[in-house]
Parts: sequence; structure tokens; C-alpha cells
Amino acid sequence: MSPFTGSAARTPDWQHLRCEVADGVATVTLARPEKLNALTFGAYADLRDLLAELSRERSVRALVLAGEGRGFCSGGDVDEIIGATLSMDTAQLLDFNRMTGQVVRAVRECPFPVIAAVHGVAAGAGAVLALAADFRVADPSARFSFLFTRVGLSGGDMGAAYLLPRVVGLGHATRLLMLGEPVRAPEAERIGLISELADEGGADEAAQRLAHRLAEGPALAYAQTKALLTAELDMPLAASVELDASTQALLMNGEDYAEFHAAFTEKRPPKWRGR
Amino acid sequence: MSPFTGSAARTPDWQHLRCEVADGVATVTLARPEKLNALTFGAYADLRDLLAELSRERSVRALVLAGEGRGFCSGGDVDEIIGATLSMDTAQLLDFNRMTGQVVRAVRECPFPVIAAVHGVAAGAGAVLALAADFRVADPSARFSFLFTRVGLSGGDMGAAYLLPRVVGLGHATRLLMLGEPVRAPEAERIGLISELADEGGADEAAQRLAHRLAEGPALAYAQTKALLTAELDMPLAASVELDASTQALLMNGEDYAEFHAAFTEKRPPKWRGR
Amino acid sequence: MSPFTGSAARTPDWQHLRCEVADGVATVTLARPEKLNALTFGAYADLRDLLAELSRERSVRALVLAGEGRGFCSGGDVDEIIGATLSMDTAQLLDFNRMTGQVVRAVRECPFPVIAAVHGVAAGAGAVLALAADFRVADPSARFSFLFTRVGLSGGDMGAAYLLPRVVGLGHATRLLMLGEPVRAPEAERIGLISELADEGGADEAAQRLAHRLAEGPALAYAQTKALLTAELDMPLAASVELDASTQALLMNGEDYAEFHAAFTEKRPPKWRGR
Repeated sequence: MSPFTGSAARTPDWQHLRCEVADGVATVTLARPEKLNALTFGAYADLRDLLAELSRERSVRALVLAGEGRGFCSGGDVDEIIGATLSMDTAQLLDFNRMTGQVVRAVRECPFPVIAAVHGVAAGAGAVLALAADFRVADPSARFSFLFTRVGLSGGDMGAAYLLPRVVGLGHATRLLMLGEPVRAPEAERIGLISELADEGGADEAAQRLAHRLAEGPALAYAQTKALLTAELDMPLAASVELDASTQALLMNGEDYAEFHAAFTEKRPPKWRGR
Repeated sequence: MSPFTGSAARTPDWQHLRCEVADGVATVTLARPEKLNALTFGAYADLRDLLAELSRERSVRALVLAGEGRGFCSGGDVDEIIGATLSMDTAQLLDFNRMTGQVVRAVRECPFPVIAAVHGVAAGAGAVLALAADFRVADPSARFSFLFTRVGLSGGDMGAAYLLPRVVGLGHATRLLMLGEPVRAPEAERIGLISELADEGGADEAAQRLAHRLAEGPALAYAQTKALLTAELDMPLAASVELDASTQALLMNGEDYAEFHAAFTEKRPPKWRGR
Repeated sequence: MSPFTGSAARTPDWQHLRCEVADGVATVTLARPEKLNALTFGAYADLRDLLAELSRERSVRALVLAGEGRGFCSGGDVDEIIGATLSMDTAQLLDFNRMTGQVVRAVRECPFPVIAAVHGVAAGAGAVLALAADFRVADPSARFSFLFTRVGLSGGDMGAAYLLPRVVGLGHATRLLMLGEPVRAPEAERIGLISELADEGGADEAAQRLAHRLAEGPALAYAQTKALLTAELDMPLAASVELDASTQALLMNGEDYAEFHAAFTEKRPPKWRGR
């Protein structure tokens, strides 16, 4: 338990997704397979709140985001989200869209790597969730569709117009966000949208393997690497170099760095403690 | 006619390029084929003024920029631009270079997608015009050359040192802008400089097809997608997510979003109105 | 000799690296082949000071950074750096990490192109030195490893979390900095980490060829191209276009631009003077 725990209780039961934690790995599963894991207001809210809770507790060292059934996530539910938003007033529409953006920020800013395990469709908000993750482990059935313009909305949804050009370049990003066409696994790999291509049907297993490897590693070093990658996209070179210097000075005072040197000297593998 | 039309008259005749508008698609053709469409002061000024006029009128929903004859555009004319600038004073040189930069900003900031239809040479300012477009539809004869250093100038011309690293990455951009060597279609496609590879001789037709498809689509959604892609290159993540939220709230109040839902429910294609 | 030379004496002898200047090309060689050119405090300090001296003198028009023996550079020496830092206090740790960052800033900000000639291992700080260069000329034996997390440190070291996403995109950069796995030449070329692939054993020669070509070219145009590429990564579009305009106005007053036009008119190759 972190010393920075206050009065807020842990949520005893996540009703809109499945969350299991084992060996420092949280596995969060979108589990509405009959609807291709279409997102509801509740699912967004649970993702936002779950990531905040896990970030406070510090017991999780890697997180896998997966989808049950035939695909990863088909995006916002046409009835439960698109239909419902049609009768909302402007303040409610802002609240909804800010919530979805908070999920993306939580994925980018939580202190552990997030791995999206993608098979089948990753559409709309589902594609952006995968995009926001640190790693996209996908199998050959994966199909990313940023289809916001196809429902009359902006391709810049939940940070997609910020993130996608920084992952695949402005040319590809413009094409994908404007046209909303599916990007299949071979193209996704070619343009840098996939981190690891798994065997057919093997995305979940490969994502778990990567998550466990990360969970067994130097967690603080990973957390800082992620934090710097996120922060330095928005920083100039000189400030980035200064942030790197103070981060490394901090970690050079830490236990894992000394442990590496001891293990190297003793010709044995290091025992990482994440501090 | 937009209600935000003032006293400024429409230009009755563009003397330094050809402009045709049909079905919401403007086709702007560089038409000095005997000079490989080398740009003159007048051509830059016409591009700047035409894009401003079309942006005010809002009747154009997509724009194709094409070149007549053997190539797209060979860049600034050696006699009419390079020769002429040699006798200019510093204030005039600044005025000229600001004008060319204004053309690039107009391409990036106009409220409709711009499609460069590239065959043959796209050199110097011609390469940057194509680079500034939202889509580069090119055929196998396309050859991009950022040859500014070859005339003793900086590779950072008209925003090229800003745009090219964001399209192809800093490594490729450094090589292309420093050395000024031609990038042929296969490499251009591999590094993300081409949006769509057309058949030999088919760039104009493929660009028109894409433009008409965009012109028939949800124009406001496309305009906002473009505006966010342009703006969020210069914004941090948190602000980008906030801009996305307010943009989507705005569009969720719009007609096209309701039309999508109605069409989906009635199992028919949507009729987009661009508002 | 530059008129902006003050009292500071030239360093008569670089003890921690080898530096030779010929025909405007400086060749800086990491020369501890028995340790795979592992870096020491002295080598970092010499790189920092050498780049500052060469930047002041303006006699160097291109720089090659190479490694002697079986590889380019294996990074910080495990004994002389990792071991030594374990007994340092916080102020010393900051000083060390700021020095390494200053080397990267010096590579990015010096007024001549820097070419890393990479064969074999480029690991840790060695990988970041190559990353900071303007060109990476590598042969098929090249192997880049950003292995900071493997010693318990942040992958964001010496600006790597700033530079790598801008060279290969955020997805690849996250994978490389988090996992520290080697990137071999074919993948490095595919993702844009290599500027030029040389024949086996030919990286040094190809780097020299490129350096001499650059040294014979319009040096001021190259210097400004590099300066704008570096600066505009941190600038918005509108400001970049303005910077380009004033840079070109400046260079259009220069001798090399007039020389290009004269040479073109007289149908002879230009004689570049770098001013």
C-alpha cells in the first residue's frame, strides 16, 4: 500500500469491464463480445477510474488491455453512445468528450507500461485506446479503423490527431484520420503502428509474455522511461536533456542501478526491486 | 455565399495558374508546361490569393493541385525568380520569402483538404507545395527533390524543415534537405511521403477521384480533422485532448452526426450536408 | 581564424579520443578498441570541449564520428562510469549527466553536419551519439541498442526520449527505449534509423565520402539547414515559416547564391565558398 493513500476506497467491483491482477500484471478485458466490445459510458468511466486507482496503488507494474471474443473493440456503441449523445445538451457533450480524453491521458500518464493486445477490429475509440498504449501487440487479423469522419465527427478524437502523426508521421495520419479506412496488420506493421506482430490468435498470449517480462524488470526505470517519452513529445531539446539528466541522477541513487553493477560484477542476473 | 463576405471582390481571372471549380472540387493547375511549371512571382501570389478567396467562400470542399505537361512543378524559375532576387534589397527579399511561406500556411490552414497530384518532377518549391498538401497522390514517375542547398540556399524553405521531419522523420528529412537528392516513387512510398500510389499516368485521375469522394462527404468533419491535425502538431497532449473534446461536442450538435445515426438506424447511406 | 576568437587557447592534445582535420573534414575517432570504445568521463568531456572549439573556429565544414576496432561504441564503461557513479553524491551525478547531455546538444547545435560511421555495436550512450548525428552511415554489421533500462536507468538518457520518437516515431521509440533490445541494420534501415547503408566494412569510407562531399559544398547553406532542422522541431508552423523566410533572405544576399546563378548561366559547376 502506498503511503500516499487517502480516504478513497478501492472500487470493489468493476461492472463495465473485467480486471484481474496477478504477479504485478493487471489484465483489463473489454468483455461485451456480443457487441464486439463496443464501449458504453460506463466502460469509459471504469477505464478512467481504474487507471487512476491502479496509478495510486503502485502494485501494478504492467497492464494489458484486451478484448474478449472476435475483436478488440468496435468503438463507441452506436445506440448507447451515439444515440444517447443526440439528446444531450452542450455541457453534457463536453463532459462526455472530456471523459474519453481523460482515459487517453490516463493511459499515457499512468506509471506503468500499457500493452494493447489487438486481434480483429480496433475501431473508433477502440483504435485510439490501442494507439495510446505504449505497446500494440497485434495478430494478423488486427484491423485499425479511425472511422470518426464516417459518423460525421472529427478524426481528432481523444487525442488521435496529436498521437497518430507522432506514431506514423503526418502523411499516413492525415490519410487514416480523414478517410477512416481500415489499416490491416501488414500495413500497420509497415508504418509503425504495431509494436510486435504475434502469430494468428496469439496476441493475448504475446501481450501477457511482454507484460510479465516488464513486471519482472526494473519498474522505476520503465516508469521513468514512459514518463519521459510522454513528456518530451511536448518539450524542446534543451529542456529534455535537462530532464534526462535529473532523472538519471535520481535513478543512479536508486537500488536497481547498484544492483545491476553488483550482479554484473558477480556475473549473475540482477534482482530488480523497482526502486 | 458566406455571410462573412465583405467588400473584397472575387478575382475574375487568375493569370498565373488555371482554376476550375466543379461539384465542390477546385482544380488548380500550374500551367507553364514549356518550363516544367516553374513558379514565378505571379504564380506564388495567385496561389496565396486564390486560397484566401476559396477559404472565405466555403463553396469548395476539396482542392486538387496539379501540374500540366511532363511534370508537377520544377520549383522557382531560375531566371524569373533566382535571377530577379539577385538585385533585390533585403526588405524585398523578406517580402518574397514571406509570400512563399504564406502559400504553405494557406495550404495547411484552408478549411478543405488539399490533394497534390504528382507526376514527374516535384522540385524545390514544387516539392514543398506537395509536402504541404494533405494528400500526395503520385504515380510511379514522381520524383521529389528538395534541392535548395544546390542553389546555395537553406533546405528549410517555406516550412520544409518543419514539415518534412513530421512526415518522414528527422533522419530522412535531414538527408533529403541537406543533399537535395531526388526521392523516387518507391522510396517516397516507403518513407511515408506518398499518400496514394496511382498507376502510371493516373495521378490526376486518382486525385480527382479522392477529391470528389471528399467533396461528397461530411465537409465540416473533414475541415475540423484537418484543422486539428495542423494545430496539434504544435500543441501538448493535454491541450490537444481538450481541443478534441470541444470540437466533438460542437460536431455532435451538428446535422451530419444526427444524419449518420438516422441513416444507420434506417439502414441507408447518410446524406452529408457538411454542417 | 574567426574574428570571434578570444583568449581561450586551442587544446593542443586530445587525450581521450583521436581528432584529425583534413580538407575541412574533422574525423573524430573513439579509440579504445580493446574496450569496444567504451566511454569514460574524459571521453565525454573531450567530445564536449572539442565540439565547442571546432564550432568557434569555423574551419571544419563536416565531422565524422567513428569507432576503432570491432564496433562503434559500447556506451559508458561499466567500471569507469557505472562503478564510479555509485559513490558520487547528487550534485556530482547531476554534473555527470548534464555533461553527457551537453555532448548531444553540441552535436545537434554545431554549425556543420555530423556523420556517425557505425559498424558493429552502438550501445547505450554510443547509440545516442549516433542518434544525435545528422547522418548515420552504417554497414550491415551495425547494431543499435538503447540498453539503459538494462542497467536500471531511464531510457531517456542524453535526449534519447526526445530524439528517437522524432526519428523513428513514438511506437518504435517506446519499444527500443523500454526493452533495450538490439536493432540490427535491416530493421534500422526500415524504420529510418540509418541514413545510408554501406557495404560490409565500408561505413568509414562511405562516411568520409559523404563528409568530403559536404565539405566541398555550400557550407553556410548546410549549416543553416541543420540549424533550422534542429530549431523547428521545437517551433510551431507559423514561426518556422517566418524563420525560413529570414534565413533565405539572408542567404540570398550571400555569395554562394549569386555563384549558383552565374555558374548556371555559364553552364559550369558552381565554386562554393560557404558564404
